[in-house]
Amino acid sequence: MDVDLTSLTIAVLGGTGPQGRGLARRFAAAGLDVVLGSRDAARAADAAAALESGGRVRGTSNAEAAAAGDIVLVVVPWDGHAELLGSLRHELAGKVVVDCVNPLGFDKQGAYALPVEEGSATQQAAAILTESRVVGAFHNVSAVLLEDPSIESIDTDVLVLGDDREATDLVQALADVVPGMRGLFGGRLRNAHQVEAFTANLISVNRRYKAHAGVRVTDV
Amino acid sequence: MDVDLTSLTIAVLGGTGPQGRGLARRFAAAGLDVVLGSRDAARAADAAAALESGGRVRGTSNAEAAAAGDIVLVVVPWDGHAELLGSLRHELAGKVVVDCVNPLGFDKQGAYALPVEEGSATQQAAAILTESRVVGAFHNVSAVLLEDPSIESIDTDVLVLGDDREATDLVQALADVVPGMRGLFGGRLRNAHQVEAFTANLISVNRRYKAHAGVRVTDV
Repeated sequence: MDVDLTSLTIAVLGGTGPQGRGLARRFAAAGLDVVLGSRDAARAADAAAALESGGRVRGTSNAEAAAAGDIVLVVVPWDGHAELLGSLRHELAGKVVVDCVNPLGFDKQGAYALPVEEGSATQQAAAILTESRVVGAFHNVSAVLLEDPSIESIDTDVLVLGDDREATDLVQALADVVPGMRGLFGGRLRNAHQVEAFTANLISVNRRYKAHAGVRVTDV
Repeated sequence: MDVDLTSLTIAVLGGTGPQGRGLARRFAAAGLDVVLGSRDAARAADAAAALESGGRVRGTSNAEAAAAGDIVLVVVPWDGHAELLGSLRHELAGKVVVDCVNPLGFDKQGAYALPVEEGSATQQAAAILTESRVVGAFHNVSAVLLEDPSIESIDTDVLVLGDDREATDLVQALADVVPGMRGLFGGRLRNAHQVEAFTANLISVNRRYKAHAGVRVTDV
């Protein structure tokens, strides 16, 4: 798809965490304008300033970021996911919303997938944001790599999940702007759960092999 | 791990399907002795003969194959999985059992993960085979590629899931015998579901991109 992404603003809700900051850094480096959202607007402004993006990243409240974004990434903790999205239904109406949340639990034996009533975080978002175009993506990307300015290429595929072809194409194009990253269609919303949960496996891999594991799909 | 796999017999239950035949072909090509099992011993014998393995693959009943194998792969349809394993508890006691089954449903929109009471096929196997050492593996390997004799290298990682380190090491070594294939520890049994279910995503990828998709884990 030929989309001029540079005319779009990318919002990142929950943008002050490692994953949100890391994605913002990469999008800004690719020439996109980014708005970080946080519960605490001042904290988002500080996080944006720390990215040294040459003015491409600014920080504000989640609600203002949601209103400002053409594409809105949701990178908040699973705990509070439903509540936040419920409070932003108006701001997010009509927009492409990209859920990046992995519902995981942690104990001494590592990470594990939490059960989600709607099937997945992405499906929960779709159930709440009935006026938005909900896509799942960026679940399996290492925040450590995203945040490391010495790493120029993020060599991983981004599986993009959704039932709206135009929206998944757009999000694939968004992933493609990051050097090394490739957006691939990964299935419909009903198959989002396992991609979210797979992050628990990557965490197991990271523990065992002292790695920052990502995923590549072969033969594509 | 330094295991002399050539001294071991690999059994493949449900070995007359494409996945079972394909794995048997690859293990035999690597110099391992393989026993294909089937509900119908004559059919297994025919399938083994058709592999032209130079006598490395023979076919028999599932029960005889289970008894003969040192490592026993379970490659049966999900429908009937519990019943078959329940009938082979005695034959499989003490052995490394590798569950390769993906509980998937199919409709016009493609494949989707079926709910499993125990969490996953692998966990169901572990719940039934309390005297065996149950591991999950080989879920995401394309049967089309495995069965194609013109393809020499199967360029994919095999995520090996289990709580028994010696058993997962052994199954990783088994994956490693196939050129291009790499066995990686992918987490504990409780994280098997998403690896099984991920096959639905690979089927979506195959549809969209006309591919025979596999998985590589990066940075390992």
